[in-house]
Amino acid sequence: EIEVYWLWIYVAVMAAGAFYFASLSFQRKGVPRIEYLVAFIIPVWSGTAYASMAVGQGIVDIGEKVTYYARYLDWVVTTPLLLVALSMTGMFYIRKDKVIILGLVAADVFMILTGLIADLTSSWPLRYMWYTLGLVALLLILWIIWYPLRHKAQSQGRELASLYDKAAGYLSILWVCYPTIWLIGPSGIGLVGQVTDTVLFVILPIFSKVGFSILDLNGLRALKK
Amino acid sequence: EIEVYWLWIYVAVMAAGAFYFASLSFQRKGVPRIEYLVAFIIPVWSGTAYASMAVGQGIVDIGEKVTYYARYLDWVVTTPLLLVALSMTGMFYIRKDKVIILGLVAADVFMILTGLIADLTSSWPLRYMWYTLGLVALLLILWIIWYPLRHKAQSQGRELASLYDKAAGYLSILWVCYPTIWLIGPSGIGLVGQVTDTVLFVILPIFSKVGFSILDLNGLRALKK
Amino acid sequence: EIEVYWLWIYVAVMAAGAFYFASLSFQRKGVPRIEYLVAFIIPVWSGTAYASMAVGQGIVDIGEKVTYYARYLDWVVTTPLLLVALSMTGMFYIRKDKVIILGLVAADVFMILTGLIADLTSSWPLRYMWYTLGLVALLLILWIIWYPLRHKAQSQGRELASLYDKAAGYLSILWVCYPTIWLIGPSGIGLVGQVTDTVLFVILPIFSKVGFSILDLNGLRALKK
Ligand SMILES: CC1=C(/C=C/C(C)=C/C=C/C(C)=C/C=O)C(C)(C)CCC1
Ligand SMILES: CC1=C(/C=C/C(C)=C/C=C/C(C)=C/C=O)C(C)(C)CCC1
Ligand SMILES: CC1=C(/C=C/C(C)=C/C=C/C(C)=C/C=O)C(C)(C)CCC1
Repeated sequence: EIEVYWLWIYVAVMAAGAFYFASLSFQRKGVPRIEYLVAFIIPVWSGTAYASMAVGQGIVDIGEKVTYYARYLDWVVTTPLLLVALSMTGMFYIRKDKVIILGLVAADVFMILTGLIADLTSSWPLRYMWYTLGLVALLLILWIIWYPLRHKAQSQGRELASLYDKAAGYLSILWVCYPTIWLIGPSGIGLVGQVTDTVLFVILPIFSKVGFSILDLNGLRALKK
Repeated sequence: EIEVYWLWIYVAVMAAGAFYFASLSFQRKGVPRIEYLVAFIIPVWSGTAYASMAVGQGIVDIGEKVTYYARYLDWVVTTPLLLVALSMTGMFYIRKDKVIILGLVAADVFMILTGLIADLTSSWPLRYMWYTLGLVALLLILWIIWYPLRHKAQSQGRELASLYDKAAGYLSILWVCYPTIWLIGPSGIGLVGQVTDTVLFVILPIFSKVGFSILDLNGLRALKK
Repeated sequence: EIEVYWLWIYVAVMAAGAFYFASLSFQRKGVPRIEYLVAFIIPVWSGTAYASMAVGQGIVDIGEKVTYYARYLDWVVTTPLLLVALSMTGMFYIRKDKVIILGLVAADVFMILTGLIADLTSSWPLRYMWYTLGLVALLLILWIIWYPLRHKAQSQGRELASLYDKAAGYLSILWVCYPTIWLIGPSGIGLVGQVTDTVLFVILPIFSKVGFSILDLNGLRALKK
C-alpha cells in the first residue's frame, strides 16, 4: 500500500538524521556531548517505531477504527527528549534548573498518555474527555516554555535569547499541529482519511524531530563562546 | 451506581488539593519549588486515575472478580513521590542522600508491582505469594523510614526532628491500612464487599495524599529559617 | 516438570546472592553504598521474575511457541544495573561521566525491547529484523565498554585498569552468549529444545549476575585506598 511506502521514507530520513547528528559529534564546537546524544537517540527511536508500523506491527483495532499505538510509543520517548533539548538550550550558560525540566517532562508524559488512552477508547464522548486533558497539559507546556524558561534564556545575552526564541517558536507551531491533525483525522472527527493522516504524521515529525535538532544544534554550535 | 458517585467526589477533592498546592507555591517561604511540584503532581495524577475508573475504564475481569488496575497505575507514580517528599523533609537542611531515596523508591515500586500481579492472578494461593512479597517490601520501607532516614532527621535540630516524626508517623499508619483493606476486601478474603472497598479506597487516599502533603508542606513552611 | 525444578534452583541462588551482598554492605571498605544497593537489587528482581515463571506466570503463547516474557522483564531492569555497576567501576576514582552511562543504558534498553518484540512476533523474517536491531545495540554497548569507558579506566592507575579489564572481559563474554542461545533455542532456529534452553538461561545468568557482582564488588573492596 501507499502508506507503507511513506512509512519507509520516514525510516530512511530518520536514519539519515541519526548519522548526521552522530557525525556532527566528532567536532563538538563547545556544545556538550549530551546534546548530541539526545539528537541521536530521537531519530533512532522514532525510526524504529515507524519501522514497526511499516511491517504491520504496533497497530490495534479499537471498535471500527485502527489505532497506531506505536506512534505513542515513539512520542512518549521523543517528546520529553525534545523538551530536554529545548531546556538545555534555554539554560545554556547557566545551571540547569531541574524543576523546570521535571515540570515539562511530567506534563508531556501526561499529555502523551492521555492521548494514547483517548485513542484506545471506543466510546466517543470519553475520547474527548481524555483529549481535553491532553490539551490542558499542552497548554501548560507552552506556558512553561514561553514564561519561566524564556525568562531564563533572556538573562543570558541577546544571541542566546534570539536562538531560544527561534527554537521555541518553531517547536510551538509544530506541536500545535499534532492535536489538530489528531482531531481532523480518523482519531477524531474524520475529516481527513487514514492515508492523508499517515502522510501528515510522516511529514510533520520530520520537521519537528530532525528539523528541530538541526536548528537547535547548529544554533548552539554557531554561538560565539 | 453509588460507587461512581464516590469516585467523582475523590476526583473533586484531588482537583481542590492540586489548586491549593499550586496556590501555596506563589509564596514559597523558603521551601524549594520541587516540594510544591511534587505535592501538585500527586493529586493530578491520582485524580486522573480515579476519573478513568469513574467512567468505567481501568478495570479488568480476572476470574470471578474485577481488578481495578487503574489503582496501581495511580500508586506506582504517587507512592514514590510521597516517599521522595518524606525524604526531602527528613534531609531538609542537609545534602540529599541519593542511596536512601533510591532504596525507598525501588522497594516501593517493587511493592506496588507485586500487588498488581497479585490482583491479576486468579489462583488463590499464588495471589498470597505475591501479596507476601509486597508486604516484605513494605516492611523494608518502614525500616528505612524509621532507622536510617529518621537518624538523619534527628541530626538537624529539634524542630525538624519533630516535624519528621509527625510526617513519618502519619504516613506509616496510613500505609499499613492499604494491605489491610486489600486483604479484607474483594481482592483478599472478601470480608467487606466491593462498595465498601471502593469507599475506603476513596477516603483513605485523601488522607494519605492531600492530607499528607498539607501536613508536610505546611510543616516545612512553618520552620523558622 | 524438570524445568520448574531448575527455575526454583535459580530463585534460591539469587536469594543467597542478595543476602551475601547485603551482608557485605555492613563493612563497606571504602566502596560507596550505591554499589551494594545495585548488587542487591539485581538478584532480588531477577529472582522474583524467575519465581513468576516457576509458578507458570510470565509466559504467553505466540503462534506455535511459548514466549517467556518474564525474562525480558528481568533483563530490562537488571542489564542496565549491571552496566551502571561496570561504569562505576571504570570511573571509580573520577567524576562519573553521565553521558557514557546514559548512552549505555539507552542502547541496552533498546536491545532488550527489540529482543522482546522479536520474541513476541510470530512471523519469522520479522523476528530476525528485530533480532538484528538488538544485535546492533549490543555491538554499540561493547564498543562503549571497550573504547571510551576503558580509556577512562586506564587513566586511573594500573590496579584499577586491570580490575576493569577483568570485569569488562567477563561481562562481554557472557553477554555474547545470550543472543547465541536465543538464536539456537526455540526463540530462533530451534537447534536446542525448551528444556535445554531453560537450563542454559538458569546457569548463564547466575554467572552474569551474582558472579559478576562478586568479581566486581570484591575487586573494588580489595583496591588499596
Ligand atoms: C495535545 C494532545 C496531543 C498532542 C500531541 C503532541 C504535541 C505531540 C507531539 C509530538 C511530537 C513533537 C513528536 C515528534 O516529534 C495528542 C497526544 C495528539 C492528543 C491529545 C491532546
Ligand atoms: C504491602 C502491600 C500493598 C501495599 C500498598 C500500599 C502501602 C499502598 C499505598 C498507597 C498510597 C499511599 C496511595 C496513595 O496515597 C498492596 C499493593 C495493597 C498489596 C501487596 C502488599
Ligand atoms: C543482542 C540481543 C539480545 C541480547 C541479550 C543480552 C545481551 C542479554 C543479557 C542479559 C543479562 C546479562 C542478564 C542477566 O544477567 C537478545 C535480547 C537475547 C535478543 C536480541 C538480540
